[in-house]
Amino acid sequence: MIERYIRDVPDFPKPGILFKDITPLLQSAEGLKLAIDQLGSLVDPKSYDLVCGVESRGFIFGTALALRVGKGFAPIRKPGKLPWKTVAESYELEYGTDRLEIHTDAVAAGQRVLLVDDLLATGGTAGAATKLVQRIGGRVTACAFVIELVFLGGRKRLEGTPVHSLVKY
Amino acid sequence: MIERYIRDVPDFPKPGILFKDITPLLQSAEGLKLAIDQLGSLVDPKSYDLVCGVESRGFIFGTALALRVGKGFAPIRKPGKLPWKTVAESYELEYGTDRLEIHTDAVAAGQRVLLVDDLLATGGTAGAATKLVQRIGGRVTACAFVIELVFLGGRKRLEGTPVHSLVKY
Repeated sequence: MIERYIRDVPDFPKPGILFKDITPLLQSAEGLKLAIDQLGSLVDPKSYDLVCGVESRGFIFGTALALRVGKGFAPIRKPGKLPWKTVAESYELEYGTDRLEIHTDAVAAGQRVLLVDDLLATGGTAGAATKLVQRIGGRVTACAFVIELVFLGGRKRLEGTPVHSLVKY
Repeated sequence: MIERYIRDVPDFPKPGILFKDITPLLQSAEGLKLAIDQLGSLVDPKSYDLVCGVESRGFIFGTALALRVGKGFAPIRKPGKLPWKTVAESYELEYGTDRLEIHTDAVAAGQRVLLVDDLLATGGTAGAATKLVQRIGGRVTACAFVIELVFLGGRKRLEGTPVHSLVKY
């Protein structure tokens, strides 16, 4: 049971929001192994070639999963962090916009990508990450999340891509 | 050979600096496995209880290593990112200062920590991370890096802690 390793933190990052804190899950050897084993079972590893994850909690689960299933990992980062040639994609936040980048050689042409993140909220981040993978010639064949905040309706924004999550709130 | 997966990017993040880009290493299933296997062999897993890593490339190698050796992982983050109670530590950069935070319950009293990061440069980040672990009652019994820029002398700053690295430049 992944849920018992997730801690509720009220009023973070701002008043009225109940934050789902995954650090107890990571700190537990059993919890970490369970989460990665379960993520690995959500989507058949034969159906993707590479794992992508978004900075920075997506790095945590994405790389560990990639190692577990014997794939490589390509990072998607905040602007200015990736050293080589990049493409960028902006997306809307509640207030204002944010921007993500990927190396133009992160995914080979036609490669199938599993997009991994800790949390599916409104789907803005995952939507932008999916576009980035498409723009460099790959395709996101599925998304896998540790936590899904169902009431925020993120799945709608990812229509056309199968969405999987370990824990739903 | 890890080296053949590391790409030199000139003039990043600023003119005159030759950046060691680890994204080709991560993107390769063989490269990622090799790096984590080698990190796991650098330090006897019996000599530590938990892995800590600093945002955000330390998350990549730290979590994957923790999974590989059957330990938990505790993240050290930039200010304002961790939701629960934290302690903070400032450290000097070439120009100005930076700050890191850890949850006060990230490490249990007396726990032995392996600190993992992608790069040992001047040692400022690893030094601050070591202090954070001490302040919450743990101790860093060793540091493991994928890349060490020997000419920057980071080991000196970590005196008293065994330092291991996979690739030295």
